[in-house]
Amino acid sequence: MDKLKAVLANINKLDSKLMESAQERLDNLTKPLGSLGRLEELAKQIVGISAKESPELKNKVIFTLAADHGVTEEGVSAYPKEVTAQMVYNFIRGGAGINVLAKHAGARVVVVDIGVAEDLKSSPELVIRKIGYGTKNMAKGPAMTRDEAIKSIEAGIAVFEEEFKKGIDIIGTGEMGIGNTTPASAITAVFTARTVEELTGRGAGVDDKGLKNKIEIIKKAIKVNKPNPEDAIDVLSKVGGFEIGGLAGIILAAASKKVPVMVDGFISGAAALVAYKIEPKVKDYMIAAHCSVEIGHRIILDYIGLKPLLDLDLRLGEGTGAALGISLADAAVKILTQMATFKSANVSEKVK
Amino acid sequence: MDKLKAVLANINKLDSKLMESAQERLDNLTKPLGSLGRLEELAKQIVGISAKESPELKNKVIFTLAADHGVTEEGVSAYPKEVTAQMVYNFIRGGAGINVLAKHAGARVVVVDIGVAEDLKSSPELVIRKIGYGTKNMAKGPAMTRDEAIKSIEAGIAVFEEEFKKGIDIIGTGEMGIGNTTPASAITAVFTARTVEELTGRGAGVDDKGLKNKIEIIKKAIKVNKPNPEDAIDVLSKVGGFEIGGLAGIILAAASKKVPVMVDGFISGAAALVAYKIEPKVKDYMIAAHCSVEIGHRIILDYIGLKPLLDLDLRLGEGTGAALGISLADAAVKILTQMATFKSANVSEKVK
Repeated sequence: MDKLKAVLANINKLDSKLMESAQERLDNLTKPLGSLGRLEELAKQIVGISAKESPELKNKVIFTLAADHGVTEEGVSAYPKEVTAQMVYNFIRGGAGINVLAKHAGARVVVVDIGVAEDLKSSPELVIRKIGYGTKNMAKGPAMTRDEAIKSIEAGIAVFEEEFKKGIDIIGTGEMGIGNTTPASAITAVFTARTVEELTGRGAGVDDKGLKNKIEIIKKAIKVNKPNPEDAIDVLSKVGGFEIGGLAGIILAAASKKVPVMVDGFISGAAALVAYKIEPKVKDYMIAAHCSVEIGHRIILDYIGLKPLLDLDLRLGEGTGAALGISLADAAVKILTQMATFKSANVSEKVK
Repeated sequence: MDKLKAVLANINKLDSKLMESAQERLDNLTKPLGSLGRLEELAKQIVGISAKESPELKNKVIFTLAADHGVTEEGVSAYPKEVTAQMVYNFIRGGAGINVLAKHAGARVVVVDIGVAEDLKSSPELVIRKIGYGTKNMAKGPAMTRDEAIKSIEAGIAVFEEEFKKGIDIIGTGEMGIGNTTPASAITAVFTARTVEELTGRGAGVDDKGLKNKIEIIKKAIKVNKPNPEDAIDVLSKVGGFEIGGLAGIILAAASKKVPVMVDGFISGAAALVAYKIEPKVKDYMIAAHCSVEIGHRIILDYIGLKPLLDLDLRLGEGTGAALGISLADAAVKILTQMATFKSANVSEKVK
């Protein structure tokens, strides 16, 4: 708990003075006022987060956390749970969507086993921070103990802090865990007080019958465990997942180090929600990369108050949307730092 | 006219067989079916356009065409018309928004003077294909002769074909011309039969009074010139601009060489509309990069039937949105060509 407390004590408001001067610079660049829209907002936010007048997004890191979920024994996913481990190996070999898109964005991927149900072969490409061999079946009782929930958050903090030593200018969140839209939906339902039906989607692709079952299981999990919406760690422990806790920790740790967080899709959104419930100030450090097809995601974004950058019908997770978002953030910062001003370029200003 | 005819004779349907096999490959990649949404559609479209099984977007070119508009003497723009030439020099020096975003996307910018009102200093970075020293004031008569309209299209074709020799895998359209949202609105009104009020925006930033005047001038131009909506070249000559004609030529030429076209914002959209009216088949070669703040743009996209990739409140032009779109297209193609399949990665497939 000390690690988490130390992080929370270091999450501050954005640097509003530097944001004002960034706005002034943006207004003097050779373009009509505000004509680069959300790129300008983004550049300003990143100045405020980093507290740097001319930030540079050189070191981009996407954290892809993998874990299993006991609730898969209720048949909530279209894929067998072995796929979690298989996909971790795919990440390590560089064949997954996140590898391709992270490379495209110039980001490195840090793959973390925070709770895969089997022992994975060690690899220099894999960080092992296992809290357990998957969570327990939340339809029957708590997914994890309160202690494990805190440990998962603190494991995320430790992973971030380890990577931060190598240099990080922006991060993206990502995850892999067969069955993990189920805890993400449960978390969202508990925090936002919306109905399970409203925010439960097909995940990796369950059919109508599967969706109906998934909704019933989520309702049952909430009924059995009675998570307390005023206590984020209680919610995480009862209906969460290790990767969700880990990502919440990473998000909080990034904010404490003035690092912008590109939040990926629905499961990352649930982690952002947990982080936000622990410390609302973390919101200012978040950028929503995209809006997922998974219907609960829009509800999370509205609840926190985040406006997604992209709407490309993505629903893969892994951090894929975050990778695209990071590329936009990079573009936004370059606008601020590399464009000429009216004065430097000898361009006449607006007359009317 | 021969140059244009030759191009039109070479615009064919997309390669549907290769698109089918691209779909099959996409469906076998290690991700839930269709979970990369519009990136998958985009990859498939680019396979169909290029007629290559595994396209690679190595050579990316953004054509930024500059021209002046006689109609600026009616006070339709918030900026003095000297800014067109000043911005061309800014493009050449690399200080404009398009320079920064093209570099970010790994694209080169080809800057073309197709009708700036003054003689520009020659530079290896500037292609000079002047049709005239700006158009005439369309509120008083045709913006250009029919011959000039054809010449502007053919100048675009020539510029594209010259660059194509150096290698081009995808292009983006861009423009600079103080006052050019006025002809873009007029063109859109004529072709879509929507009211001038519905599709006229503030351009680079006119105030309420300026907007009212702009609407009146556009109406007057249409009334005075009576452009025939069934004759695209008539519309271009009467209420168009040299850069709009040039971009229409570039778009048609790209399609004739199986090169995907990332269409930027409102003025590029008006050029796309001219190209589409000349040869509807060109639509399949177009990708709409984004939806501009300029209200007429959405009307153009709906009319042609294009769905924008991005919605970031951009309204700068120059090709800036196209640069961001090209980066997404690049990502999409890499998904198709670089991801592992379920089989190659030993990942189990969907069970239900």
